[in-house]
Amino acid sequence: MPLSTSEQQDVDALRAASAPTRRSTVPDLEAMLYKALPVLDHGFVRVVDYMGGDGAVVQAARVSYGAGTRRTREDAALIRYLMRHAHTTPFEMCEIKLHVKLPIFVARQWIRHRTASVNEYSARYSILDNEFYVPAPQHLAAQSTSNRQGRGGVLDGREAERVAALLRAEAERVTELLRADAAQAYAHYEEMLNEDAAGAVRDPSRRGLARELARMNLSLNVYTQWYWKVNLHNLLHFLRLRGDAHAQYEIRAYAKEMLKVVQRWTPLTYDAFMEYRVNGASVSARGVDVLRRRLRGERVSRRDSGMSRAEWRELHDLFPLEPRTQPLLPGVSG
Amino acid sequence: MPLSTSEQQDVDALRAASAPTRRSTVPDLEAMLYKALPVLDHGFVRVVDYMGGDGAVVQAARVSYGAGTRRTREDAALIRYLMRHAHTTPFEMCEIKLHVKLPIFVARQWIRHRTASVNEYSARYSILDNEFYVPAPQHLAAQSTSNRQGRGGVLDGREAERVAALLRAEAERVTELLRADAAQAYAHYEEMLNEDAAGAVRDPSRRGLARELARMNLSLNVYTQWYWKVNLHNLLHFLRLRGDAHAQYEIRAYAKEMLKVVQRWTPLTYDAFMEYRVNGASVSARGVDVLRRRLRGERVSRRDSGMSRAEWRELHDLFPLEPRTQPLLPGVSG
Amino acid sequence: MPLSTSEQQDVDALRAASAPTRRSTVPDLEAMLYKALPVLDHGFVRVVDYMGGDGAVVQAARVSYGAGTRRTREDAALIRYLMRHAHTTPFEMCEIKLHVKLPIFVARQWIRHRTASVNEYSARYSILDNEFYVPAPQHLAAQSTSNRQGRGGVLDGREAERVAALLRAEAERVTELLRADAAQAYAHYEEMLNEDAAGAVRDPSRRGLARELARMNLSLNVYTQWYWKVNLHNLLHFLRLRGDAHAQYEIRAYAKEMLKVVQRWTPLTYDAFMEYRVNGASVSARGVDVLRRRLRGERVSRRDSGMSRAEWRELHDLFPLEPRTQPLLPGVSG
Amino acid sequence: MPLSTSEQQDVDALRAASAPTRRSTVPDLEAMLYKALPVLDHGFVRVVDYMGGDGAVVQAARVSYGAGTRRTREDAALIRYLMRHAHTTPFEMCEIKLHVKLPIFVARQWIRHRTASVNEYSARYSILDNEFYVPAPQHLAAQSTSNRQGRGGVLDGREAERVAALLRAEAERVTELLRADAAQAYAHYEEMLNEDAAGAVRDPSRRGLARELARMNLSLNVYTQWYWKVNLHNLLHFLRLRGDAHAQYEIRAYAKEMLKVVQRWTPLTYDAFMEYRVNGASVSARGVDVLRRRLRGERVSRRDSGMSRAEWRELHDLFPLEPRTQPLLPGVSG
Repeated sequence: MPLSTSEQQDVDALRAASAPTRRSTVPDLEAMLYKALPVLDHGFVRVVDYMGGDGAVVQAARVSYGAGTRRTREDAALIRYLMRHAHTTPFEMCEIKLHVKLPIFVARQWIRHRTASVNEYSARYSILDNEFYVPAPQHLAAQSTSNRQGRGGVLDGREAERVAALLRAEAERVTELLRADAAQAYAHYEEMLNEDAAGAVRDPSRRGLARELARMNLSLNVYTQWYWKVNLHNLLHFLRLRGDAHAQYEIRAYAKEMLKVVQRWTPLTYDAFMEYRVNGASVSARGVDVLRRRLRGERVSRRDSGMSRAEWRELHDLFPLEPRTQPLLPGVSG
Repeated sequence: MPLSTSEQQDVDALRAASAPTRRSTVPDLEAMLYKALPVLDHGFVRVVDYMGGDGAVVQAARVSYGAGTRRTREDAALIRYLMRHAHTTPFEMCEIKLHVKLPIFVARQWIRHRTASVNEYSARYSILDNEFYVPAPQHLAAQSTSNRQGRGGVLDGREAERVAALLRAEAERVTELLRADAAQAYAHYEEMLNEDAAGAVRDPSRRGLARELARMNLSLNVYTQWYWKVNLHNLLHFLRLRGDAHAQYEIRAYAKEMLKVVQRWTPLTYDAFMEYRVNGASVSARGVDVLRRRLRGERVSRRDSGMSRAEWRELHDLFPLEPRTQPLLPGVSG
Repeated sequence: MPLSTSEQQDVDALRAASAPTRRSTVPDLEAMLYKALPVLDHGFVRVVDYMGGDGAVVQAARVSYGAGTRRTREDAALIRYLMRHAHTTPFEMCEIKLHVKLPIFVARQWIRHRTASVNEYSARYSILDNEFYVPAPQHLAAQSTSNRQGRGGVLDGREAERVAALLRAEAERVTELLRADAAQAYAHYEEMLNEDAAGAVRDPSRRGLARELARMNLSLNVYTQWYWKVNLHNLLHFLRLRGDAHAQYEIRAYAKEMLKVVQRWTPLTYDAFMEYRVNGASVSARGVDVLRRRLRGERVSRRDSGMSRAEWRELHDLFPLEPRTQPLLPGVSG
Repeated sequence: MPLSTSEQQDVDALRAASAPTRRSTVPDLEAMLYKALPVLDHGFVRVVDYMGGDGAVVQAARVSYGAGTRRTREDAALIRYLMRHAHTTPFEMCEIKLHVKLPIFVARQWIRHRTASVNEYSARYSILDNEFYVPAPQHLAAQSTSNRQGRGGVLDGREAERVAALLRAEAERVTELLRADAAQAYAHYEEMLNEDAAGAVRDPSRRGLARELARMNLSLNVYTQWYWKVNLHNLLHFLRLRGDAHAQYEIRAYAKEMLKVVQRWTPLTYDAFMEYRVNGASVSARGVDVLRRRLRGERVSRRDSGMSRAEWRELHDLFPLEPRTQPLLPGVSG
């Protein structure tokens, strides 16, 4: 339960109220407005406000005096066209504001996207809550040994079992360390502040350290929160990078919830985004050449192609080599 | 009348519709939503959408779960505090979208503000209307001779009369030239296009020039239009610079209407903006020193002050030298 | 010859001087520093300053204390990796400053890229030169009739001849109109100013109109100029969009020269950019599916694919349907 | 000593090399290029590259073909004019690149400035060093009790002594807590990684946690480092806010060193910045009114002025009420 009782009451009060507006509205998004969508163990994403929707993309592309939309089919085709040809400015005409609660180390990745507006809860002036992220055991993966980048992928067979056993053996220890260190750091944070989480002085005979200093003792898995406001174009860019399999699991968990928000808010844009950005592919010049040759029936070797091993593998993950390079026994599919 | 009948119908249709929303609304701004506020001879500003209001500034500054506002008096004090101390990020939490029709030379100044989203009517793909700006005679001021920057200020007495007479004599000629050249350029634009404004082919035996090329014959006073979306912080920055007396009259005319929009949309922020940015003053280090000495009763000369003539004049326009600190002979003015 | 004699002298003086620096240098770019590379009839691009090179990309990616580079081969691989995986921030570590002279209608397209710093020659305070762009006859293409977007492509056979004849017939007229209108507009500009291009008063009995107003009579093909400073990442983004075949010829002419600058400045980055961005391809989800099926030897029809006509055509322009996968009977189309 | 021996060797190698360039150079800045300027207990700022100088500001403001500078006196006057009238774009024509080592909680404040390019050392892929910030005792100030914002100011007399005694008593405890918690967190970081700082595996029988996860146990005073590249305009904005007395001491320590860099790099701009931004004052509309009345010899009370207590105090900190306008009895000070 990421919200306290009084926080939930604030949310409920906002959800209960309604007012008439002449602005365009998106009922599917209104339905989830202000609700906290849980992420990780204590985090959430809440949609706090929005401007526009698919109609606003179309309206701006047509620079129209009215709503700018026609039949859904035509609007969808226009939006697909804009997405395909990187005419990105109409997507900037939609804006969304989120309230996000997230671990500091996730916030540090997130903030690298500079094209958004942010108001973060200030640990300089306020006291942070005693909430910190501890990964679930299944996310305590070992470092990928192949490229030292992020956690390793799924392992096959015996190696997977061996690793799983190791991890089970280590997971408890890791979880314990994370919990103990965060708890101790927080206890010392309160001691240095000479205040409890509610701001009450603990020992009247002491002064307490400035909040802006005491916070430095907290660890990077402590939760912070912020208002984050971004336009649809920049949000999609964020989701493309942070929803990608190469992104760290913890930020991907946020991207996943936000993608659902986009689907409700701008369903036509969502479809075009999935088609052209998420599920499409970028093929290099050498990749184009390899595919052309394969389509002509030629056999192409990696050496021939001029590609690196990694590129060659990435290309063939997308466009697998045909069965004939695979099993020789009839009836066995590739 | 800046809108055609069909454009006005589009606007009326949008104004007639209403839907319930859980988002925060600003009834004063809703009342003017979609309406074209006339500017110059054929231009306008229309508010097409908005997000947030004074409450959103407060909500973000407090990173609150609910609306974040308390009593108006406390909210006003907080907003004044944020404005005074340049805590600008909460003002980024409000967003507004305008549809603007404006001469191209004004658009060229406007676009230098890079922190907004823009979709302009495309003269590459579409045909521009035959509408161009011709200044009213009272705005056909002569170049300021003192600093070559912008039009001259108000002149006193005899010189003003002489100039006024000259200008009356020249105004008709200038107006005539602007009209004739723009009309001729547009006629040739249509001829090169081999299309009329509605896109109908004029002479089937000719091909017509590409629109992207023909447009280059148009003059800089032709009207264009765009959707312009910006957050409140950047809007205020725009209004401070473009609403200033040093800005060109034509863009100031737009800033003036937009300032009225801000007043309706975020009245508390508007008040703080007028207090600290528009009607306040920036005083240089030397200016501070001069004022301190004057407050102590010292007489300060420009030479003493280390200020340039222009700075000295600017300071004393704001803080006039008192008669008693000036000439000692009665009847001689300073 | 885009530069006047005195301008050329300024350039020569800068080129003649040299000073020692501890900063990283790029001799190939130094060789062309300050030179005006001609574009269109009166325009140019000049490299005025630069910071970094391929080494700076590598240095930033490695956050190193020294130069950060190793062997060229490793650096090239790293740069290719960064480009392939959209790790764009290291490319922001290089910066270039250009002085560009360009027609106003080109400047209006250019300025839509907001991620650069610009100082434009001010027609508010200064007098514009009497120089305007007139396209060469071969660039006076007709509007594409298929999609109304930009000029038509290359036409085949008889239609091409007919169009060519028409265009030859019309080209002289168009050229004449552009020249005459621009010349007249400039003459009236000078008359309104009551100044000549050098700022000398023409008729002492008249006041002259403010420069900020008189300029509105000029046409969009008049040349302006600016300093334009941008980092390598944003420059590549600009070149990808504005160097593309869909961009208007006139801005592409600038992109083409700037691409040569990039090749000299950051040859490893240039190679990666050409490989992954310019000569690579973006394939949609449906496109991936079509290619996979074709690679498996299936025949795929457009209807099947779910693609629009335009998308289908674009895909097969890249990956042509092979003769052998097509009909064997003469006269039967695929 | 913020640099290790091998890091210092990298720096020395770069400093020893020199190459000729046609670009403008700033010998005073070259002299300090690459050197680590120490900040806090383990941090530094190093200038790694730069583009332009005062001359580039002038060149861009004049959109000149040559260097654009004239006599120093004229250049200084132009730069002062640009600074005074907020013509900020010419200052964007200078660029600087810094290598900064800083505690994570400082990095989190710093990154809120979005108008710079950043490449941070990646704790996702690499192992952070065991270096953390511990404030010197004199910087362990107590929270300001008056406004809960930042550390309290200087206290007078007996209260100061009492507080000083308390702080001395508490400082040792705080320092001890910070050291112990950071050391323990780092030890557990290494244990979870199953690697030492150099990347060597500690216990071959264990897998080790992914680096991207293990880092979450580190505290916010651990040092990170980044390349930070920014233009002069945005750098000055940063220095104005982060060099201000209201900024946290730790980030001000960086701002102070960077201000020295600006003084060497662009001395004319530095002077204008100090004159108009740092040592100048922003006076509100009510403040202007109060000063005008005081200059006319009126006595103004706070109630009269419409100002809040805080504003009134701020105004009179800048423009003290003079003895002679106050005390009624000779010899009694105000």
